[in-house]
Amino acid sequence: LVVLADEAGLWTDGRYFLQAGEQLKGSGITLMKMAMPGTPTIPDFLKVKLPVGAILGFDGRVVAAADGSTYEEILKEKGGCVRADLDLVGEIWADRPALRTRPAYLIDESRSGMTFDEKRRLVLEAMEKEGADVFLLTSLDDIAWLFNMRGDDVDYNPVVLSYVLMTKAETRLYANLPAFGEEIRRELSVQGVTLLPYDQIYTDVTELSPEQKVLLEREKVNYRLLTALPEGIEVISRRNPTTIPKAAKTEAEQAGSRAAHVRDGVAVTKFLYWLKKHVGKEPMTEISIADKLESFRKQQEGYLTPSFETISGYGPHAAIVHYSATPETDAEVFARGMILIDSGGQYVDGTTDITRTVVLGPVTEEEKKAYTLVLAGHLRLGNARFLKGCGGSQLDILTREPLWRNGLDYRHGTGHGVGSFLNVHEAPNRINYNARTDWEFMPGMITSDEPGYYEDGKFGIRTENLILCVPDQTTGYGEFLKFEWLTLVPIDQEAIDTRYLTEEEIGWLNDYHAKVRETVGPFLTEEERAWLMEETKPLTK
Amino acid sequence: LVVLADEAGLWTDGRYFLQAGEQLKGSGITLMKMAMPGTPTIPDFLKVKLPVGAILGFDGRVVAAADGSTYEEILKEKGGCVRADLDLVGEIWADRPALRTRPAYLIDESRSGMTFDEKRRLVLEAMEKEGADVFLLTSLDDIAWLFNMRGDDVDYNPVVLSYVLMTKAETRLYANLPAFGEEIRRELSVQGVTLLPYDQIYTDVTELSPEQKVLLEREKVNYRLLTALPEGIEVISRRNPTTIPKAAKTEAEQAGSRAAHVRDGVAVTKFLYWLKKHVGKEPMTEISIADKLESFRKQQEGYLTPSFETISGYGPHAAIVHYSATPETDAEVFARGMILIDSGGQYVDGTTDITRTVVLGPVTEEEKKAYTLVLAGHLRLGNARFLKGCGGSQLDILTREPLWRNGLDYRHGTGHGVGSFLNVHEAPNRINYNARTDWEFMPGMITSDEPGYYEDGKFGIRTENLILCVPDQTTGYGEFLKFEWLTLVPIDQEAIDTRYLTEEEIGWLNDYHAKVRETVGPFLTEEERAWLMEETKPLTK
Repeated sequence: LVVLADEAGLWTDGRYFLQAGEQLKGSGITLMKMAMPGTPTIPDFLKVKLPVGAILGFDGRVVAAADGSTYEEILKEKGGCVRADLDLVGEIWADRPALRTRPAYLIDESRSGMTFDEKRRLVLEAMEKEGADVFLLTSLDDIAWLFNMRGDDVDYNPVVLSYVLMTKAETRLYANLPAFGEEIRRELSVQGVTLLPYDQIYTDVTELSPEQKVLLEREKVNYRLLTALPEGIEVISRRNPTTIPKAAKTEAEQAGSRAAHVRDGVAVTKFLYWLKKHVGKEPMTEISIADKLESFRKQQEGYLTPSFETISGYGPHAAIVHYSATPETDAEVFARGMILIDSGGQYVDGTTDITRTVVLGPVTEEEKKAYTLVLAGHLRLGNARFLKGCGGSQLDILTREPLWRNGLDYRHGTGHGVGSFLNVHEAPNRINYNARTDWEFMPGMITSDEPGYYEDGKFGIRTENLILCVPDQTTGYGEFLKFEWLTLVPIDQEAIDTRYLTEEEIGWLNDYHAKVRETVGPFLTEEERAWLMEETKPLTK
Repeated sequence: LVVLADEAGLWTDGRYFLQAGEQLKGSGITLMKMAMPGTPTIPDFLKVKLPVGAILGFDGRVVAAADGSTYEEILKEKGGCVRADLDLVGEIWADRPALRTRPAYLIDESRSGMTFDEKRRLVLEAMEKEGADVFLLTSLDDIAWLFNMRGDDVDYNPVVLSYVLMTKAETRLYANLPAFGEEIRRELSVQGVTLLPYDQIYTDVTELSPEQKVLLEREKVNYRLLTALPEGIEVISRRNPTTIPKAAKTEAEQAGSRAAHVRDGVAVTKFLYWLKKHVGKEPMTEISIADKLESFRKQQEGYLTPSFETISGYGPHAAIVHYSATPETDAEVFARGMILIDSGGQYVDGTTDITRTVVLGPVTEEEKKAYTLVLAGHLRLGNARFLKGCGGSQLDILTREPLWRNGLDYRHGTGHGVGSFLNVHEAPNRINYNARTDWEFMPGMITSDEPGYYEDGKFGIRTENLILCVPDQTTGYGEFLKFEWLTLVPIDQEAIDTRYLTEEEIGWLNDYHAKVRETVGPFLTEEERAWLMEETKPLTK
């Protein structure tokens, strides 16, 4: 949001054009549709609109250092300046809730597969390599990973509000002290971690020596922290050294994820059985269906919270890629068409994220064709085998080509990295043909495989499994990699038109369903199991 | 080659390790295997080996400006300097041949599809956009393209040794004047081009005003030209504005290429018929076979020269990716195993480049499997359909995946751009999964599709067609592209094991062969045509 004396603009991407347009009506604020032709970026807007000598105020704690520096440059050129110490919204936000301080806790090495000490050593090695004396870490999932610590301070993300300042001699963790009980304090202390009040980092960084070199990631650290550093101190901006080891899960984390996915698979399979049996026979809505799914997950051991807000989109609602049903939009669901349900869970041993498009009644030929093309791409990616060195921008064509061949596409990435009992969106692995800044796949990386197809005002389709990168074979040509399906839930075969699948793809689907029956089957009731057998009957061309 | 007082090194890539190793024996020169672990780059070698205050001499006319600047930096750090005005090799090269001065000539707009004036306007627009006053162009194929001019000054490449200096007011072409007859001089003069002696550019650039801004491509312009520019002049280094329009062929060039490929297809098909009928019945060698192929091309209208040195590799020789038979290595060819023949022609209307691996007698199961996996990849790339924005690093996985799935690979790119009656290697389009500096495919681009497989000491396989990028369909999702096969020559079905092809791939092969029969068939003798029908009989799974 940029507010000037006589106008204001709210920048948002395609996911929220509809909603923002509605909610901004009559506010005098202009909706700025990001990435659309003719929409200026915020920096470009500031360049044009700000008068000479202007002062731009913002809360530097919630603006990335890289962005803040851009604004600073613009204002400097105008003979003005920025004031990053102003929390103008905070001043008028009367009923603002307090920062969350849910209990922080450490997870066992048997879960993380790596001790804090081992992780700290990795960071210290990276610092040494870069010639840095200090490491400043502020991204919450990196901090959680580093300390093998979890909490519940951000909806869906089991992280702890905190900052870290590390030198060779000392590791300082800045956090809300009331969230730290006696046990975790003792454990941290044993590991040589100094626990300090959350806001103290802003004064501590001012006391660094200007001769020191600070390693940080400018796209992650906030602007106020960067500018609080002593004048003249050398900043080395690099990708956080925690990012890659966090993405390439340990054997223990992989084992945890597999176990969590079996339980999640049981919950979702039971839910699908319930949905198929009850739809059309009792009243249900998008929200009541999402609640029902949540109730199945709650029955599973180690389940804590959803890993993101469930998308439950019926009929035309499914075409809204990030639709979230509200009491106002909540649609009644009948025994016709399809419903798209994208949901996930945080389990103590892993994070899940799954989308199924479920047939509730008659579907059209057009829907079947689109559903099958999406499925073909989904299967092709999950069954890819490739030489180490490939990233998601190179593999994506496998997923999209069945749609592209028909002049169709979906306007979102095919996959994102997923944390290990951490954030459901995790860098750097991703799958998107036009994002060449991706990272090569490494064994242990967990990524979503979620192609889709959306027909505005009519229907939406998405099929999503999580895939784990694992070694395939190593030959004279190098190290080959492949994926293992983590998600184990039947894929609705009612909407499949086998004319759009090759024999190889049908074989892959049958293999997948055999694995689902084998792993999830034993935890179902007899009735559910019989249904699963029927639902996943091997297809033939 | 880097020569120091007491040691010397020759840098070369994998293609020449064997040959260079042989030829350097006893020379005292060390073979530096580029890109192999432990081999320093030339700059790294200089950094370590050169003493303080050293002077590095080289002929700045044959070193790219970007490289020369790197050497300059290194020497500066050592308190030394470079001397780029020294042609030390020229001083001791007694029987050096004179520069070639084959007649230069202009080609008609009906062939090029764009007049010099239209092309000049494109360049002037690019100069204006960059705020440049002068454009310095030295890459020979760009110059040939810009002036619609061809010659024969470099083996295989129909270019004219020359330089160009362009301002808004004047276009200067520096070249060997004896190569320019009365007709081309008159034509150039009419178009407002000033023809000047080849070497005069080195003095002319010194007379530019230091206030001017010069547009050039530092990776292409030579070091001596760059350093001859007046002190303080502003250099704007960009990709030459000629590169993209040269790569995206005009309709006239596309039509020319299609026509040239039919004639080339006739020549190569006749040759294959001859080879299949005569092998084992009369003596033949790699070289005599290549000569025979050349004799078929020479019968075709508009054929001028080969577009590169023919690779004719029999048996284990085919495993040497850039093998070139010499009288010493020339192997006798028998009615067993396979021969790999990679060749191409320069025709007045287009450039061709084709590889066929031909079965001469019994082949092993291993050879058949590899041959078929290579073919699968070849067909998958040629039949790809994709959204505009994709480049070769994204499409390459389609080609390699059949091999990768079996732990196999080939250690070269899958494809390179090809000129229109110009150089057989042309930037910027290329197909290579680990070359993310490729360029998106555009309609009109011609690229090779040439996967392979090489088993050291045993056999080598490569199948290559040229593919033309053409529009597929435009939908609400954007502009989709596909490829059209330009090369029209049967692919040997004797080595195909259909177990390794999908039905879709078999269908693509049959479609391709139908097109070959239809276009090339009418120009064959009755016997040849009967053979072609038999050779290209539709396969089934």
